Amino acid sequence: MARIDFPTPPADKAALEEGVAFTPRFDSAGLVTAVVTDAEDGVLLMVAHMNAEALALTLETGIAHYWSRSRNSLWKKGETSGNMQRVVAMKTDCDQDAVWLSVTVEGDRATCHTGRRSCFYRDVALSGGEAVLVADGSKPLFSPHDVYGKS
Amino acid sequence: MARIDFPTPPADKAALEEGVAFTPRFDSAGLVTAVVTDAEDGVLLMVAHMNAEALALTLETGIAHYWSRSRNSLWKKGETSGNMQRVVAMKTDCDQDAVWLSVTVEGDRATCHTGRRSCFYRDVALSGGEAVLVADGSKPLFSPHDVYGKS
Repeated sequence: MARIDFPTPPADKAALEEGVAFTPRFDSAGLVTAVVTDAEDGVLLMVAHMNAEALALTLETGIAHYWSRSRNSLWKKGETSGNMQRVVAMKTDCDQDAVWLSVTVEGDRATCHTGRRSCFYRDVALSGGEAVLVADGSKPLFSPHDVYGKS
Repeated sequence: MARIDFPTPPADKAALEEGVAFTPRFDSAGLVTAVVTDAEDGVLLMVAHMNAEALALTLETGIAHYWSRSRNSLWKKGETSGNMQRVVAMKTDCDQDAVWLSVTVEGDRATCHTGRRSCFYRDVALSGGEAVLVADGSKPLFSPHDVYGKS
């Protein structure tokens, strides 16, 4: 299958913001930001990054692919855990440096590598002039130890 | 008012992921990613960035502040348009390099500089093997020309 090519972003701001050409503005590392929400209830599941290959594969297969900055490699999300993400809709923002994926999560319906549904499981709060985290009570939906073979 | 200090992130992954200390992992440019959704219905409004000062001001004032990468300056969102964002809740993710703001938008309730409610007003679709954008019909809620004084 021929891989989708993404044209160079136009210099004209109006074309970028109001045009019909998808011309993602990859940053100096070749990445755009990807925001991922649950298609059913809109909960924010994760924030990740995509290079051109990950973006093309996501569009072509309907399964979310990312670029792992920590592993420096293409990342088919859920390939190990079974919690793959089926893309229901994809949008881009005004200046085309971010995409929003609305997805259905397969398997345990967990997105975070800690086993939780969402990576955002702690509230930021102020306490005595310091910023602290408060767990929101989300519990793991699978055992990361069993799935990834490490504690 | 003393500005909140953010401690250096711990080297220990478990402390970062399961601890109660908010230790944002600013990138090499000193920024974390901020995802902003509407507190009422969860719609994704924008993706932006925050440096330590913007993050501290947001926590201290309850009004969202960002770092504008295009203008290279602190950015009190909505200061010109009146569409300021009151923070209802803030979360961080497993590795603390992103925050999620749930906000109420004041004024025209518009977030995008194009006047629209959300920056994500175009769907990405495949057409004849190419990725194209399809406007979702969102209309401007204010006139950018009138507010920003440029067309």
